[in-house]
Amino acid sequence: MPRKGTSYERELASLLWSKGWAVIRGPASGGGARNRVQPDLVAVKDKIILVIEVKKSKGSTVYLDPGQVLGLLEWAKRAGGHAWIALRIPISGWRFHHVDSLETTQGGRFKIAKPKSGLKLRDLLALYDRKMHRIDEFLGQNM
Amino acid sequence: MPRKGTSYERELASLLWSKGWAVIRGPASGGGARNRVQPDLVAVKDKIILVIEVKKSKGSTVYLDPGQVLGLLEWAKRAGGHAWIALRIPISGWRFHHVDSLETTQGGRFKIAKPKSGLKLRDLLALYDRKMHRIDEFLGQNM
Repeated sequence: MPRKGTSYERELASLLWSKGWAVIRGPASGGGARNRVQPDLVAVKDKIILVIEVKKSKGSTVYLDPGQVLGLLEWAKRAGGHAWIALRIPISGWRFHHVDSLETTQGGRFKIAKPKSGLKLRDLLALYDRKMHRIDEFLGQNM
Repeated sequence: MPRKGTSYERELASLLWSKGWAVIRGPASGGGARNRVQPDLVAVKDKIILVIEVKKSKGSTVYLDPGQVLGLLEWAKRAGGHAWIALRIPISGWRFHHVDSLETTQGGRFKIAKPKSGLKLRDLLALYDRKMHRIDEFLGQNM
């Protein structure tokens, strides 16, 4: 039986929590928020904010609705955070695509043509751990 | 009929969103997260992170379980955010109490003896808007 989308969100939330991130999952199906945007997952560590949309993928092209992507961007803009699409691919595992890297289709949607080309979780976390260290060094020299 | 706790969370989420904050509500009842902590609400604006537990109050002393408070503190610590208890009081409206201001009981719980003495939403937002302006000025002078 295929797993529900929310079970993947839970899996990713637990992974990020185990790596020291503060994580909150949004309520399923937006939780009655008509005029607000709610991402699937928000993860925060030392003021670095990741806003994440979680999707299953079989490895072939993934399509995203403009509303979903623009909502994610709006949330990230207000928060001062970084917007990512997290794809859960069978066997390969998690792959992360920054929203800026999405391609557009002729029909006005967004797509990820090569799901497996995204960052692995390990690489995503290493990217932000380096950022944190740079900020620490900057503050150490300037405060 | 008394409203459910989640309807107050929605009310606060909409208020904060309308003031320009990015807001995410946690899933009801923790959403199956056994080893993680999930706050009721997280609001973020320009990298200022508020971690909020929402409670109803009739205006008399409010008691909080240690697990709830310590969970909120753990989330805030990981995120680099600020932990608040938001009380929804009939007629009076919203009052915000910083977790550091909680009193302890002899039984090892936490309490808010004067619910109405908390910050109003307007004052809470003014507090953080001032912080944002100070950071902008600091960056303007130093970057």
